[in-house]
Amino acid sequence: MTFIAVKAGFPRGILLQELEDIFGFIIELDKLKGVLRKTRPIGLQRYENSAEHSWHVCMAAIMLREYANEPVDIDRVIKMLLIHDIGEIDAGDTIVYSAETPQVKAEEEAGLRRVLGLLSEAVAQEYIDLWLEFEAGESADARYAKSIDRIPPLLHNLHGDGLSWKENAISEQRVLNLNSRIKDGSSAVWDSLESKLKDAFSKGLLS
Amino acid sequence: MTFIAVKAGFPRGILLQELEDIFGFIIELDKLKGVLRKTRPIGLQRYENSAEHSWHVCMAAIMLREYANEPVDIDRVIKMLLIHDIGEIDAGDTIVYSAETPQVKAEEEAGLRRVLGLLSEAVAQEYIDLWLEFEAGESADARYAKSIDRIPPLLHNLHGDGLSWKENAISEQRVLNLNSRIKDGSSAVWDSLESKLKDAFSKGLLS
Repeated sequence: MTFIAVKAGFPRGILLQELEDIFGFIIELDKLKGVLRKTRPIGLQRYENSAEHSWHVCMAAIMLREYANEPVDIDRVIKMLLIHDIGEIDAGDTIVYSAETPQVKAEEEAGLRRVLGLLSEAVAQEYIDLWLEFEAGESADARYAKSIDRIPPLLHNLHGDGLSWKENAISEQRVLNLNSRIKDGSSAVWDSLESKLKDAFSKGLLS
Repeated sequence: MTFIAVKAGFPRGILLQELEDIFGFIIELDKLKGVLRKTRPIGLQRYENSAEHSWHVCMAAIMLREYANEPVDIDRVIKMLLIHDIGEIDAGDTIVYSAETPQVKAEEEAGLRRVLGLLSEAVAQEYIDLWLEFEAGESADARYAKSIDRIPPLLHNLHGDGLSWKENAISEQRVLNLNSRIKDGSSAVWDSLESKLKDAFSKGLLS
């Protein structure tokens, strides 16, 4: 998608204020680097933050796109994943196994609206709509994006002694139940990960 | 851009190996979260890593796209920025003031080729080409992406007492000279940041 540099004809005062607002937004985003998740990047002795996670899922989405169950618009998927955790700047990260309550989602939405509120109303609305679509998980793009969002934490646990599952007392059955949603976006990816999980459980990953 | 799930007709054995390779690539990417840069996110008492930086520049690119000097394909710009630092997994991060030597660039390219080499040759080549385009900085997309890549570290220094410039003994003149390349992608953004820099220097940011 090509964007023309449409700002050339705008009055300078309006432009400068808008640019200031965007710089303020970019600065605000730094806070997502301080929001800690529940898993650790493989090989690192610290918890992952939501900003680096957001980058990681974008890369995973690109490389797995041909395994999506349905045609997806990868550029929309990437934008969804870039912004999907911004609300955590205010709401913090909640492990997915307890995050799917109306209260947690309302806090994340309020946070997203507050941070995007630093931008113009039209831009904010575009990304609020994209987040709502992601959360609803009813479009092909959202189904695929939500599948992808599960993959790195699952790999972190598989390659990191199930650390976050043990620390948060998540049973094998809950792991399998919750992550089975991956098949809504990609049954090929879920088939592969499900057999890896069952194999790891049989070898005592969580015992 | 819409991608059809083209893998449905492939023999299962080939699919499974390719999927394993992609999982291996996703796992390898975790290492970029351990590559430390020279600036600190605003408000955090640690150095930034190249993975979270990659996310941050994607967000900045989206929100500043209307300020690009020339029409840009924002989806290509985002992909460039998502992958632009992957070579640092092997090469490490070098502050931009000393990074632009043939040796540093060769190390980054070798790293990129090694990591992308975990994927199929066609996919690897697509992203190597995108990185080479970014590094050459001769297309409108690359000029804009390279401009954007400078913005968060500049804001980090402006809002963080010029920490990395002081720690690395970068003079005011070098800051202005190097970052003036921002105007190749967006003269409006550079006009604004240049006056912020001069104002901060006049108030003693680096003294």
